[in-house]
Amino acid sequence: MSMSHTSELCDRVTEYRLVYSDSTWSRQRADCGHNDGLLSKAKIYESSTEDGIIWTVVSPIIFSYRVIQCERLLEANNDTLLFGHIADPVELQALKGNGKIQKRFVVIDETVDDLYGCQVKAYFESRGVTYKILPLPTTEENKSMRLVIKILEEVHKFGIDRRTEPIIAIGGGVCLDVVGLAASLYRRRTPYIRVPTTLLAYIDASVGAKTGVNFSNCKNKLGTYIPPIASFLDKMFLRSLPRRHISNGLAEMLKMALMKHRGLFELLEKEGRGLLESNFQGLEAARVSSRLAIESMLEELAPNLWEDQLDRLVDFGHIISPQLEMNVLPALLHGEAVNIDMAFMVYVSHERGFLSEEDKCRIIECMRSLDLPVWHSHCSLDLVQKSLRERIQHSAGLQRMPLPIALGQGGIFNDTEESVVCRAFEKWNQELHKDNVDVL
Amino acid sequence: MSMSHTSELCDRVTEYRLVYSDSTWSRQRADCGHNDGLLSKAKIYESSTEDGIIWTVVSPIIFSYRVIQCERLLEANNDTLLFGHIADPVELQALKGNGKIQKRFVVIDETVDDLYGCQVKAYFESRGVTYKILPLPTTEENKSMRLVIKILEEVHKFGIDRRTEPIIAIGGGVCLDVVGLAASLYRRRTPYIRVPTTLLAYIDASVGAKTGVNFSNCKNKLGTYIPPIASFLDKMFLRSLPRRHISNGLAEMLKMALMKHRGLFELLEKEGRGLLESNFQGLEAARVSSRLAIESMLEELAPNLWEDQLDRLVDFGHIISPQLEMNVLPALLHGEAVNIDMAFMVYVSHERGFLSEEDKCRIIECMRSLDLPVWHSHCSLDLVQKSLRERIQHSAGLQRMPLPIALGQGGIFNDTEESVVCRAFEKWNQELHKDNVDVL
Repeated sequence: MSMSHTSELCDRVTEYRLVYSDSTWSRQRADCGHNDGLLSKAKIYESSTEDGIIWTVVSPIIFSYRVIQCERLLEANNDTLLFGHIADPVELQALKGNGKIQKRFVVIDETVDDLYGCQVKAYFESRGVTYKILPLPTTEENKSMRLVIKILEEVHKFGIDRRTEPIIAIGGGVCLDVVGLAASLYRRRTPYIRVPTTLLAYIDASVGAKTGVNFSNCKNKLGTYIPPIASFLDKMFLRSLPRRHISNGLAEMLKMALMKHRGLFELLEKEGRGLLESNFQGLEAARVSSRLAIESMLEELAPNLWEDQLDRLVDFGHIISPQLEMNVLPALLHGEAVNIDMAFMVYVSHERGFLSEEDKCRIIECMRSLDLPVWHSHCSLDLVQKSLRERIQHSAGLQRMPLPIALGQGGIFNDTEESVVCRAFEKWNQELHKDNVDVL
Repeated sequence: MSMSHTSELCDRVTEYRLVYSDSTWSRQRADCGHNDGLLSKAKIYESSTEDGIIWTVVSPIIFSYRVIQCERLLEANNDTLLFGHIADPVELQALKGNGKIQKRFVVIDETVDDLYGCQVKAYFESRGVTYKILPLPTTEENKSMRLVIKILEEVHKFGIDRRTEPIIAIGGGVCLDVVGLAASLYRRRTPYIRVPTTLLAYIDASVGAKTGVNFSNCKNKLGTYIPPIASFLDKMFLRSLPRRHISNGLAEMLKMALMKHRGLFELLEKEGRGLLESNFQGLEAARVSSRLAIESMLEELAPNLWEDQLDRLVDFGHIISPQLEMNVLPALLHGEAVNIDMAFMVYVSHERGFLSEEDKCRIIECMRSLDLPVWHSHCSLDLVQKSLRERIQHSAGLQRMPLPIALGQGGIFNDTEESVVCRAFEKWNQELHKDNVDVL
């Protein structure tokens, strides 16, 4: 090993690549030509000061995950639940052929367990899998570290191979978020699989990398950005979903439509009611809208998986809603709170002159047709202003306010004045208050 | 549907790149020539099956962190503690010039607080920083989620800008690991800074990305791989360190020497005793050995920050020691447990014919000269065998046993037979038991 080089002069940065051979990684100066052995994507930079040495490590980690829309997930002859996370056919053959009994730890929402628990059991039994199913009350009120620890205790007791036996979460967004966090922490990262059973989770939580729990009455204050190894989306689960939860999911779909896809917006305008009434089953519109929603979401999430970029269209509807949702818990579902936030922001956008009166009305009308609330008594001007201040504080000093600037097009703005917010709030109140007071 | 069917369709995978313009990310087929706008490093692959669609997201996240060896860290005129994490001079100027009062949340080990708390306070006061110092008993026994939650509650109460106000940890490895985990979780990732005050943390915890706490009597069973934004290493803190803790740190240094650097081993053989007696102060050997240890460690960690590669030389001494350390808590310090594990593995290596009798004796002699234990009554054959079985279970079915194959050179082996382990254990017991019974 050649470590014999002496200190560089002040201000001089030396770049090293890293080369693997004979079980050892070695630094090589990047300005030397030769490298034999495996080359890492990581780099080390070194410079000396009069005090000492500065090393800078730059190391890329590649996250890779699969989102799979499928059918008949719980049927015995379907491989997906057990092996769908494995992309490499050689690895898959090896795993299926090695005769090792598979183990799976499954966390399932307890309501979902009542409906589908037997099928999940039957699936694993028919496949000869050693399994443990843990039903939990995964409600927003229970979304806490306590639930994470409970899962971890059970996982630890059951025992899994953290390389080959992913933890499976079956439930709504809360269940998927909580299990995702538990898996992120166990042995510093254990793969997990998301199986969404609500429309909201189907088009939102399952597509991205975020995990989390509430903390100190703040929504998702603790969490990680560790994506599942795979998400398996089967619309079958939505059949048993209460109508209100279909609306709830349509709110996040509408968000993507308003920010990114006029075609999706028009589809929701035209067919949203039908989607609601058919529980998202059967209709061609269900297939098309879910695909567009997922693809739009993936477009925004994939390049910004760890949210290093602060300008995010997907934050539309997520500026006032987190605190509103927490304040009135459990009165509003997540998508409902998001929709109220979006409805208000539509007024802000109109007030700023981005949206015509006609477009504003079309959007509100569409929301109503999806049975989504567009106003709430707890969404006070005080809450709005406080949320905007916090937004600035947590977004490196800028508002970064996503607003619709046309049907299916969003922009990010840092210059919305308080007077505009106040006028928008007044109009929003005037026009929508009366309309919604009976609904809520 | 069977996955083999999916595999057959693999040739119909469409690759998309992601392009940013007008606040929106859009997919573009990779086989189309044109791309205007910012191009992401992330990719989305899409393929269809008879059931539905498979999207695969591949998204690299780049981790970058600085390890800075420095002096006079707590002196009022030294910028490092406040701004040393900022590499970009433009950003630094902007931050220093914006007139905003800086806020810092500091977690400090309570013993370190007794010794240096006043200096830390004085530093922040002289710099006009709004600060909160939280002293905690960061011992191995307290290394739990409870301590993480305690930190999070205080951070939340204090309030920080998670983009620009890193949490600072000052203490030994436990303190740095626990604070690192808390910061990893807060708002899904808040930057943090490591200031090691023990030799072990100086050359080990501060250099890598691992955070963690113990769980269910298992060492570091929960944690993350989120590196600090910076580590500031000032040898001054080691002055007050009890001699046993200098030995403790020298064990991890010896690990790197045995696996990667004969020069470092010879330096420790020759000067280790002097380093111990001088508390790592003053001697040229302190400067040289710490630099070599850090550089060797960085070489191994940077290309494998998330430990995706399971063959790791840095695992030498870490196969039996985690459970040994937990079983006798608090009798053995981490480096002591590691050294007992290494001493045993030296016997395994000798038994396998990799190390000569002379080299074996030189290593054990060197360990003794550093006042490190080379044997322990609780390190039973049963514990050894159980640890090796667990190793296989958690390393995708292989032993992956790092062993010294010469002075300063390691190899990774999967074929150490049980009979060899037993013979090595017997010899190790015979030769070293008597020798250590008084010490422990």
